[in-house]
Amino acid sequence: MDYVSRQEKLQQTLDGERLDGFIVTHPQNLRYLCGYSGSSGLLLFLNGRRTFITDGRYTEQAREEVRGARVVIAKGLLLAEAARLLQAVKSARIGFEADHTTVEAAAALRKLLPRKVVCKPVSGLVMRQRIIKDADELRLIRTAVVIGAGAFERTLELVHPGVRESEIATQLEVAAHEAGAEAMSFETIVAAGKRSALPHGRASSEPLPRRGFVVIDAGVILRGYCSDMTRTVHVGRVGREERKWYEAVLEAQLAGIAAVKPGKTAGEVDQAARQALRRRKLDRFFTHSTGHGVGLEIHEPPRLGKGQQERLQPGMVVTIEPGIYVPGKGGIRIEDMVLVTASGCEVLTPVNKELIEI
Amino acid sequence: MDYVSRQEKLQQTLDGERLDGFIVTHPQNLRYLCGYSGSSGLLLFLNGRRTFITDGRYTEQAREEVRGARVVIAKGLLLAEAARLLQAVKSARIGFEADHTTVEAAAALRKLLPRKVVCKPVSGLVMRQRIIKDADELRLIRTAVVIGAGAFERTLELVHPGVRESEIATQLEVAAHEAGAEAMSFETIVAAGKRSALPHGRASSEPLPRRGFVVIDAGVILRGYCSDMTRTVHVGRVGREERKWYEAVLEAQLAGIAAVKPGKTAGEVDQAARQALRRRKLDRFFTHSTGHGVGLEIHEPPRLGKGQQERLQPGMVVTIEPGIYVPGKGGIRIEDMVLVTASGCEVLTPVNKELIEI
Repeated sequence: MDYVSRQEKLQQTLDGERLDGFIVTHPQNLRYLCGYSGSSGLLLFLNGRRTFITDGRYTEQAREEVRGARVVIAKGLLLAEAARLLQAVKSARIGFEADHTTVEAAAALRKLLPRKVVCKPVSGLVMRQRIIKDADELRLIRTAVVIGAGAFERTLELVHPGVRESEIATQLEVAAHEAGAEAMSFETIVAAGKRSALPHGRASSEPLPRRGFVVIDAGVILRGYCSDMTRTVHVGRVGREERKWYEAVLEAQLAGIAAVKPGKTAGEVDQAARQALRRRKLDRFFTHSTGHGVGLEIHEPPRLGKGQQERLQPGMVVTIEPGIYVPGKGGIRIEDMVLVTASGCEVLTPVNKELIEI
Repeated sequence: MDYVSRQEKLQQTLDGERLDGFIVTHPQNLRYLCGYSGSSGLLLFLNGRRTFITDGRYTEQAREEVRGARVVIAKGLLLAEAARLLQAVKSARIGFEADHTTVEAAAALRKLLPRKVVCKPVSGLVMRQRIIKDADELRLIRTAVVIGAGAFERTLELVHPGVRESEIATQLEVAAHEAGAEAMSFETIVAAGKRSALPHGRASSEPLPRRGFVVIDAGVILRGYCSDMTRTVHVGRVGREERKWYEAVLEAQLAGIAAVKPGKTAGEVDQAARQALRRRKLDRFFTHSTGHGVGLEIHEPPRLGKGQQERLQPGMVVTIEPGIYVPGKGGIRIEDMVLVTASGCEVLTPVNKELIEI
C-alpha cells in the first residue's frame, strides 16, 4: 500500500480547502491513510507534516504499522495530545471529520485548542479519495470476494430441511476463517421460509423448513477490506409463483449490472433494477436501495438509491442487490460485487445465480 | 425485559432536564429502551409519548421487537420523519445524543427542524440508566459469561506449540456459537510468545512457539449482552522470572477485585491494582487502565482508570484486567467480569487463574 501517496493526495485537498491542518480519527480513514489498524488513534496533518498519536496499548502496533507519520504515544486523551502539538502554531485553520466526530467530542476539542486555532468541520474529504479504489485495494477486494464465495459454496452442501439457520451461518464463518478471512464484515444473515421476508434477518436457531427460500448474505474481511454477497436458494420443490419471483429478482439484478457505467448516476442504476421489478408488478416488495459502495467499510458511498446524483467512476466498487420481501410468504435477494471499469463494469462475485432447488 | 419501565424512568430524567422531547439513535440505547435490535432506527420521546421510526428493511423486525412505542416506517431519512412529527408542536426543547450524534448529523437535524424547536445536545442520559444493570440484564450477562468461559475451556485443549493463533481463535468462536452465542463481542485476541507483549494483538497466522506466554482474550454476545475475559497460559516450562511476572499480575488482579465496593471510586480500584504491580517494580509495563463497564456494549462506563472519580454502585458490572507487557519478551493479562453488590462484589467469571503450563 502506498500510504505516502495517499497522504500527499489528501494534503493537496487540504491546500485546496485552505486548511493548515486536519485531524483524522475515523478508524478506516486511519488505516487507509497510514496503515494503522488499531481501534484508537489520531492522525494530525499540520503544515505539511503528519503525526500519529495513540495510547500505550498500541505502542508496538503503531511502530510496526504506521507509515509516513511520526508516532507519538499519548499519556492521556489523544485529543489533548493533538491540542498540545497545536499550541506551538501561531494561528491555524484546522479541519476535523464532521461526519465521524460526535458533537460532544467536537466541543471537547474546541475547549482544548488555543483560541488562535479555528476548528473547521469538514465532511467526506478522505472518503472522496477512498471511493476510487487503487490497484493494491482492488487486489485485496478481489481476494476477499473469492474467499467469501468459496465459503458460501462450501456451506451450500449443508443446506437441507431441518438444519438450523445458525449452523449454516457458523459453518460459513468457519470456512471463511479457514480460507484466510480475518473476520466477517457483518453478522451473517441466514433467513429461511417466512423469515426470508426479513431483509436483515439474522441467523436464528430455527431449523430450515421443508419448503421455502433461504437467503444467505455474508461477507468477509481480508486485511481490512470487505466482501459482500447474497444468494437465495430454495429447499424443496419451488412453486410456480415463487419461481416467477426469483426470475424477476434475477432480471432486476442483471438490469442493475447492465446499467453500471462511468458517468451514470447512482440513482439511474437503482432505477434500472427497480424498473425491472415494476414491469412484474413486484416493485412494492423491493423495500431498500439497489446497492452501496464497499471497501474498508461494508457500507460506503456511493449509495445506489432513488434519486442519488453521484456519478459512477472507474475504480468504484459497488454491490448490486435488489430483493423482494413478501410478508408472511418469503423473500429473495441476489447480490454481487461489481467494479466500475473504463467502459462499463466487471462482476467480481464468481457464483452461479440460477435458482438452485435443494 | 421491562422496556416500558425503562422508558418511564428516562421520561422522568427528561422532565428533570426540562426537555419536551428526546431523539435516540444509538443502537444500544434503542435496544435498551424499546427492544429494537436492528441497525437503523430512531426513538422519539415527545410530550410523554414515544414513536419509533425505521425504514422499510426493518418493518417486520420493528413490529416484532419494539415495545412501548408506536412504529412508523419512514420513506426517506429517519431524521426527516422525526422532523415531520415535530412540525406539529408549538415550541419545544428537544434533546439529542451529543455523545452519539456526529457534527454533520446534528447540523442536518437543525436544518430539518422548524425554528420554534430548540435542539439541545445532551450526553449520557441513557447510559446513566444503563450503567446499573437490572435483573433481566444480569441474567443475560451471567449466561454470556458462562458461555464465554465454556468456549475458553474447550479451546484450551487445542493450545500447543505449532498450532496457529488463528486456529485457536476460530475454535473458540465456533465453540461459542455452538453454545448459543449470537456473535463475538470483539475480534478474539490470541497473542503468543513475543506477540503476547501486544496488549491488543489480534490472532495472527503465526504458530505458537515452543515456549512462551499465550494471551487469550475473548467475549461473546447473548441477546445483545457482552461478556469479556482474558486468561494467559504458558506453553513449555515457565522460567523463574516469567513465573514472578505472572504472580504479580494475578496479585494485582486480586487486589483490584478486593477494592471493588459500593462507594469506592473507579480510580481507587485502578490504583489498588497498579499499586500491587508497583511493589514488584512492574507498574511501568502496565500500560492501560484496570477495567471498564460491560453490558450492551463491550466498553461502557465506568472506566476504571487513573483518577476516575465515578463511584461504584450496586448493579454495575465491570472488568478487572491488569496486565504487563515486556517489549520483546512477552505479556500477561488476567481479566474477570465482576458485579458490584451491596456489600462488595461477586466475580462472575468461573475459570481458574492459577498459572497453567502446557
